[in-house]
Amino acid sequence: MTLSAAEIVTQLSSLVGANAVIGEPSRMTTYLSEPRKRFTTGAAAIVTPGSVAEVQAVLRWANTNDVGIIPQGGNTGLVGGQVPRRGDEVILSLARLDKIRGIDTASGTMTVESGVILSKAHDAAEAEGVILPLWLASQGSARIGGVLSTNAGGVNVLAYGNARDLTMGIEAVLADGRLYQGLNSLKKDNTGYDLKNLLVGAEGTLGIITAATLKVFPKPEDYETAIVSLRDLDCALAFFDLLRSRARRRLSAYEIVPQLGLDLQLKHGMLDRDPTPGPSPWYALVEVSRLSKGASDTLIRAVEAAFGEGLLDNAVFAESLADRTRMWAFREQMSEVQSREGASIKHDVSVPIHAVPQLITEGIAAAERVAPGIRAVPFGHLGDGNIHFNFSQPVGADPKSFMADYEDKVHEAIYEVVLRLGGSVSAEHGIGQLKVDLLRQVKDPIALEMMRAIKTALDPKGILNPGKMLG
Amino acid sequence: MTLSAAEIVTQLSSLVGANAVIGEPSRMTTYLSEPRKRFTTGAAAIVTPGSVAEVQAVLRWANTNDVGIIPQGGNTGLVGGQVPRRGDEVILSLARLDKIRGIDTASGTMTVESGVILSKAHDAAEAEGVILPLWLASQGSARIGGVLSTNAGGVNVLAYGNARDLTMGIEAVLADGRLYQGLNSLKKDNTGYDLKNLLVGAEGTLGIITAATLKVFPKPEDYETAIVSLRDLDCALAFFDLLRSRARRRLSAYEIVPQLGLDLQLKHGMLDRDPTPGPSPWYALVEVSRLSKGASDTLIRAVEAAFGEGLLDNAVFAESLADRTRMWAFREQMSEVQSREGASIKHDVSVPIHAVPQLITEGIAAAERVAPGIRAVPFGHLGDGNIHFNFSQPVGADPKSFMADYEDKVHEAIYEVVLRLGGSVSAEHGIGQLKVDLLRQVKDPIALEMMRAIKTALDPKGILNPGKMLG
Repeated sequence: MTLSAAEIVTQLSSLVGANAVIGEPSRMTTYLSEPRKRFTTGAAAIVTPGSVAEVQAVLRWANTNDVGIIPQGGNTGLVGGQVPRRGDEVILSLARLDKIRGIDTASGTMTVESGVILSKAHDAAEAEGVILPLWLASQGSARIGGVLSTNAGGVNVLAYGNARDLTMGIEAVLADGRLYQGLNSLKKDNTGYDLKNLLVGAEGTLGIITAATLKVFPKPEDYETAIVSLRDLDCALAFFDLLRSRARRRLSAYEIVPQLGLDLQLKHGMLDRDPTPGPSPWYALVEVSRLSKGASDTLIRAVEAAFGEGLLDNAVFAESLADRTRMWAFREQMSEVQSREGASIKHDVSVPIHAVPQLITEGIAAAERVAPGIRAVPFGHLGDGNIHFNFSQPVGADPKSFMADYEDKVHEAIYEVVLRLGGSVSAEHGIGQLKVDLLRQVKDPIALEMMRAIKTALDPKGILNPGKMLG
Repeated sequence: MTLSAAEIVTQLSSLVGANAVIGEPSRMTTYLSEPRKRFTTGAAAIVTPGSVAEVQAVLRWANTNDVGIIPQGGNTGLVGGQVPRRGDEVILSLARLDKIRGIDTASGTMTVESGVILSKAHDAAEAEGVILPLWLASQGSARIGGVLSTNAGGVNVLAYGNARDLTMGIEAVLADGRLYQGLNSLKKDNTGYDLKNLLVGAEGTLGIITAATLKVFPKPEDYETAIVSLRDLDCALAFFDLLRSRARRRLSAYEIVPQLGLDLQLKHGMLDRDPTPGPSPWYALVEVSRLSKGASDTLIRAVEAAFGEGLLDNAVFAESLADRTRMWAFREQMSEVQSREGASIKHDVSVPIHAVPQLITEGIAAAERVAPGIRAVPFGHLGDGNIHFNFSQPVGADPKSFMADYEDKVHEAIYEVVLRLGGSVSAEHGIGQLKVDLLRQVKDPIALEMMRAIKTALDPKGILNPGKMLG
């Protein structure tokens, strides 16, 4: 027997108090409106439990009553994983589970609840002299639970790994309300299956993460930051190899941006001045950590060596914090500037690192064949083989008809190249609801069967984030 | 209907050829005799498939006929995971799947089949100018499939991580013969559940790994190696912190050994000369990688600073390859020397790093309370919080009656301390059959329920490594 929305609100209120339940659609906007405005389905209710025990109570109730539960953190996901698919689900916001349970600098860990906003976790770590090196454009609103459930990446994966790599242990509520207590600070623990990594990146379909123990690191003393000009992507790759072989894991960022990215930001007045060395087909924003006091010239020397080898055309170094901030803004504003240029067709893809030049060259050619006049703006994490392979509409085209006519064709063209090169159709953002059909088409069918078997084993009634990832 | 051993041999022979099947117990010794001689159950047959397709055929047949299959690599495991528990199982040796499928130094990966011996994988990597940084005492016989299935660690986890961290993708045959094709060279891939990490460390209970793509790294130019003398474990921890803050991830080993470890090796003539700076309660073998040509003095300077702070009593540096080899032999011979001193009670445990001194102090006191005269020989990976917390029998005691009288009591005493400190009862070696009962006692019961649900989902008939890990 299916509960009505009114019954759901009443019953949830009796579990967690009326103040923690929203039933009126007009008050749901914050929870329903997601960054890309692609998913607009309503929800039966929003519930905001104030403790792990309340999360357990809600899930016990939901499992008994076959109510779909959508875990939500900061609502910053880009594939619709955090918003409803059907409309009869309850959004369970973790926002009130926002305690920092502890920071242990001796063991290099911090334990935080899943509702903690990522930037607040950064601040808490830095107040103890350490860093939580997980930096995303959305860190001012993204919450730890969502960051872990989507295995977020960001700009420092090169040096420190992605969310999964930074997670030592987690605590999670299962579909029927049982509590998995897997918090720990152990570097080595071979006592059974790796449940931590199964729950991280599961997009809330196997359990709801309520807390995590994360790795923190000594704060670098300083950074060497530069933007270099590159005539092509082979040079970008060769300079990456050169820099990596010298700086090793102190190389914390290697981000590429095409000339059009700069042109558009200047056109839209998003930069107070040009942070690059001047016009060039490609730029790379590169950063090397200085671990101890005193000048280190690793980056300058690598740039000199690259000039000697003819890999670089020009370079400009950050000489102040303001310079560094401007360089990073240039990189971080890439998504925003595209939204100002009308409609965009986006792909978050990865390939083996050495295949990035081929990916971009062949991908642009394939997209231009199916969508004449389309403007390629591929940018991102070359050092991880992860490119945000985005395209802006032709100048003057109608955004809606452009998307209707070309989105599917351009996706098909890009994914063909990605898969041929052994790549992934979702490097960072996950599957959510946006890529459910795509996943079915491209994933190893046995892997999909294994995933479905695991989903059924841990959530037999399918109440956790229904319809996401596996459809 | 249960097949007889003779029927099993006949049917397996028809699948993979009679040469790939052993039915006579007298020819099974290599496969049945395991390093600790604790598990002596026979097997119905040994099968040695020569291809992935043959592994699939054997599993399809086994699943249909309810025959238990025990995957086996180099038969070096220390907890009995690779040998039978009941006696009616078939051991499936991966030894013939021994191809190195490829090495891609540009992407920093190598793809190897699971029967490749670890030291041969080392050699193949080094022939291409890179290293596979997974070094174990058993590397001359351990095979990749077993190394991954047990998530092996070893002496370089500090710098490079354990087997799981070094694995990018795997290929595995499931219980019913389906082939999971998860090989890839991607740094980022968020398309579904983390099946790789689920299969790595599953001890062959969820699938049989047939190949893996592993990370390789640039070969260090050289190493700085030393043995330092430490008056106590607080000094050992303080020197670790000091060294780590200076060498960061170039610190590739920090191994502690107590004075008794040296005394016993000298007594048994296992060292041509003393590699230490002289008598001391504790020694640490420390190693820092030199990444580029030219002398680096990170270790010497750190030792000088530690003298300044009064942390170290003495130090000796390796001045030749022979010195370095002797220092490492001193560390690697710790297990062997104990076997020459009679019976040992062993624990492979981990705690948060800063809790290691407390673990060892309280653990020794607790063991001596229950077993007077027992000789503590804790050694190993202080930098990972992972101690091989071993005890030798009192001098002159009868080995058998010592074990009968004290093994359970000492285990209980040590595990009480480990669990109280938030530690793990199996840091590296896994569960196998040795620790099945222990796991049931100490593991989060919800985690056990999740593990059983996953096991049932992926191997509903329970034919894969029956009775291991989950019992």
